[in-house]
Amino acid sequence: MNQSAATGKKKVRRPARQRIFDSAKELFYLNGIRAVGVEGIASHAGTTKMSLYRNFESKDELVAECLRDHKRDFWNWWDSVIAPLEGDPKAQLLALIEAFVSFKCSKNHHGCPLANAIVELHEENHPGRAVIMEHKEQIRSRLQGLCAGFGARDPEQLGDALMLLIEGGYICQITFHHKRGPIDSLPWAARALIECHLEGNQPACSET
Amino acid sequence: MNQSAATGKKKVRRPARQRIFDSAKELFYLNGIRAVGVEGIASHAGTTKMSLYRNFESKDELVAECLRDHKRDFWNWWDSVIAPLEGDPKAQLLALIEAFVSFKCSKNHHGCPLANAIVELHEENHPGRAVIMEHKEQIRSRLQGLCAGFGARDPEQLGDALMLLIEGGYICQITFHHKRGPIDSLPWAARALIECHLEGNQPACSET
Repeated sequence: MNQSAATGKKKVRRPARQRIFDSAKELFYLNGIRAVGVEGIASHAGTTKMSLYRNFESKDELVAECLRDHKRDFWNWWDSVIAPLEGDPKAQLLALIEAFVSFKCSKNHHGCPLANAIVELHEENHPGRAVIMEHKEQIRSRLQGLCAGFGARDPEQLGDALMLLIEGGYICQITFHHKRGPIDSLPWAARALIECHLEGNQPACSET
Repeated sequence: MNQSAATGKKKVRRPARQRIFDSAKELFYLNGIRAVGVEGIASHAGTTKMSLYRNFESKDELVAECLRDHKRDFWNWWDSVIAPLEGDPKAQLLALIEAFVSFKCSKNHHGCPLANAIVELHEENHPGRAVIMEHKEQIRSRLQGLCAGFGARDPEQLGDALMLLIEGGYICQITFHHKRGPIDSLPWAARALIECHLEGNQPACSET
């Protein structure tokens, strides 16, 4: 009899550390980092402030840990989208754009948790800031890599333009309150900019 | 002798209400709305919490008032950029893009104060939210209006794509910490998308 069978129908409670982490990640994203205090997190997790501080050095460290997890979520999403299109970087890029618009901009999505966080974390030495800036540099680099992969004329320029569209999409999802807003233009804009970077395009598109 | 001459070199102190408002606007933008409390504002303004509450109904109302003022600043900036190009909407749009990249993304700029604020203001009934959403709808509408003015094939699609680039530019200015990052691609991307919406472009650009 394995362990899971042994526990039968008995409710298995996640360890306090996990409950605190899950609560913090959810509440920070839904309500904002500064709007959520350690007491609120502990209470949501069904534990105490003391238990929180036994498991996490500080609220700032807990924030950084949550951001690292959002980062993992992001790359898992990204890799799952591109995996079936291995070897075709243009198709991978278009699939990412399409998946971004339909998934990342769904009604339950409140923008990029990392971009949102940097708006709140003004202290230069907050441990979350490095996580965020590294994440955005990595996205930028991966976008440019895909553009290089299908022979874009200037992969850095194109990758950066796509990054602007994506970041704009995230924030418009909040400012337009989930209505179909500017985000609807994203697939067209991304595709048009990609085409401009392929051979045989008209001069107007290649203006720099 | 006019009034200003009469006051001579005597230091004229702004009224308490104005000092509170100026302090709040500056501190909210630089440090974040939730990071700044009414006591910090009163102290920065050289007055008291009681004086703050005599002049503003609540912190939320003070936030909304600051956002309205950021909105006025934005439209003053916008109008000053387009005024010399009256009658040439394409030139106006390109001038706005150029001015946005060089001014709004300067080292002392910390993104859009209204977009930043909505990341922090999660309460549906916060008086600041309506100010922000209305502002973004107005920018969207003005961008689409300029695109219609020079005969873009689909002014709504083009205006929205430019809105995404602009909003992405604001946030990348924070996440890339004022380094020349994705924002450098904005002028090219905006120009390429505009060209795609003019007559005589290649089919790839007009894909929707």
